Amino acid sequence: MNLPHSQRPDPRDLLLSRPTRVGRLTVSDRASAGLYEDRSGPEIERVIRETLALPCEFLAAVVPDDIHLIRQQLASWADAERLDLICTTGGTGITPRDVTPEATRAVLEKELPGFGEAMRMHSFTRVPTAILSRATAGTRGRCLIVNLPGKPSAVAECLEILRPAILEALAHLRGLDPHAAGPPR
Amino acid sequence: MNLPHSQRPDPRDLLLSRPTRVGRLTVSDRASAGLYEDRSGPEIERVIRETLALPCEFLAAVVPDDIHLIRQQLASWADAERLDLICTTGGTGITPRDVTPEATRAVLEKELPGFGEAMRMHSFTRVPTAILSRATAGTRGRCLIVNLPGKPSAVAECLEILRPAILEALAHLRGLDPHAAGPPR
Amino acid sequence: MNLPHSQRPDPRDLLLSRPTRVGRLTVSDRASAGLYEDRSGPEIERVIRETLALPCEFLAAVVPDDIHLIRQQLASWADAERLDLICTTGGTGITPRDVTPEATRAVLEKELPGFGEAMRMHSFTRVPTAILSRATAGTRGRCLIVNLPGKPSAVAECLEILRPAILEALAHLRGLDPHAAGPPR
Repeated sequence: MNLPHSQRPDPRDLLLSRPTRVGRLTVSDRASAGLYEDRSGPEIERVIRETLALPCEFLAAVVPDDIHLIRQQLASWADAERLDLICTTGGTGITPRDVTPEATRAVLEKELPGFGEAMRMHSFTRVPTAILSRATAGTRGRCLIVNLPGKPSAVAECLEILRPAILEALAHLRGLDPHAAGPPR
Repeated sequence: MNLPHSQRPDPRDLLLSRPTRVGRLTVSDRASAGLYEDRSGPEIERVIRETLALPCEFLAAVVPDDIHLIRQQLASWADAERLDLICTTGGTGITPRDVTPEATRAVLEKELPGFGEAMRMHSFTRVPTAILSRATAGTRGRCLIVNLPGKPSAVAECLEILRPAILEALAHLRGLDPHAAGPPR
Repeated sequence: MNLPHSQRPDPRDLLLSRPTRVGRLTVSDRASAGLYEDRSGPEIERVIRETLALPCEFLAAVVPDDIHLIRQQLASWADAERLDLICTTGGTGITPRDVTPEATRAVLEKELPGFGEAMRMHSFTRVPTAILSRATAGTRGRCLIVNLPGKPSAVAECLEILRPAILEALAHLRGLDPHAAGPPR
């Protein structure tokens, strides 16, 4: 069973077999009301195309900070549209309207605490208010859902931190057997 | 909508408009029974006055390690006394009597996992047993609640780590609109 | 009440009074079906004997990735066998069969988020996919339960990180009073 490492399937080969389906969900009362331009959603798309370097198809939506609408959009994209990856932007702070983590947790089957930890702890050394982010992540079926910050500049920084884990997660969720070439993980 | 950064309101201006109301809650069977002097509660007060550098009014209480009494005190201070900030000290360890995190979580509306992470990970490099702390934090209405360690020396160290995030959180909870001058966060 | 530090009981003295009872639980469909050799379980035993440097008695079991069987084994070892420490290996990833963290959380009385945080953040700098681990830890009665990775090489690395906290936790759970010589913790 224990193939040498060089014979293990490369995650990227698996991910190149068909386009990765990605949803980008901008959560913002103001952007959804047209009070300002959504710059974070397009930034997610730009950075994902660039850093993941995979063929991708994108769906985009903008919803207000409403827990039911966020849940509905996440569940519909994961279940009906069978997206591989959903990135949200906005709503992870502490004001009363910020409910993105609650909405996300409500649809996750497996929470991945390490994504939020990594984003907070990586930013913390330079931006000590980064610990106010309540961002989380996890899986629903074969879909990986990740909360990103609302600021466009922070979106790129966080995706850079998370890139290797997102690629590996996409491969596992696409069917790469992490046990195939070695002991249990 | 997008004011230049220099026109954003300064959190500190907002926080200087009236004294910040702070509760310090010492959780300890022995201190509440008078078996030893509560040194951690006064230390919280001293350090907060010094590091936050804001006009503050303090309420103080000492309760035993009883989940119901802790919950009651936290909820009463947040709801009836309308405190801006509550810091607890003690009861975050793993002995059977330690229940401060459970009592805190029971009254929180929004948990902020980054506060506990930052305290543990910052201390961990020097004190590898720091990961035994189960301290958490979060908001209830407009009140920020933070679990601090029981040791007076650790209280000052943790408040120093958390200071920028506490100031920013107090400003958001006091009504500073984090979206006023830019895209969603 | 405040003994000088030098008069505090040494955790190790307490832990030497009788052998520490340790369970090692390998969670793996394939190992439990005999499809490959369990190398992680024996590695846990080897590393614990070496790094804790305590007299230990070991129980060992291999179960498939079944949430009920994992829960049953953990609860039985903690309650009936009165083990001091249980280390699991395997099942902390994101594939549909990985359920070790859920099974563990279901039997914990007090969760210790710092153990998972420390394992993930320590590994993250070298292995950025480490944040895919959902490992957790905590206590049930006087038993400390810790999820370790499935890979034998990662088992040793994580136990090294956690060693001081495990020793201190074992002493507290064995009855060392952390308040005996000082203020509340």
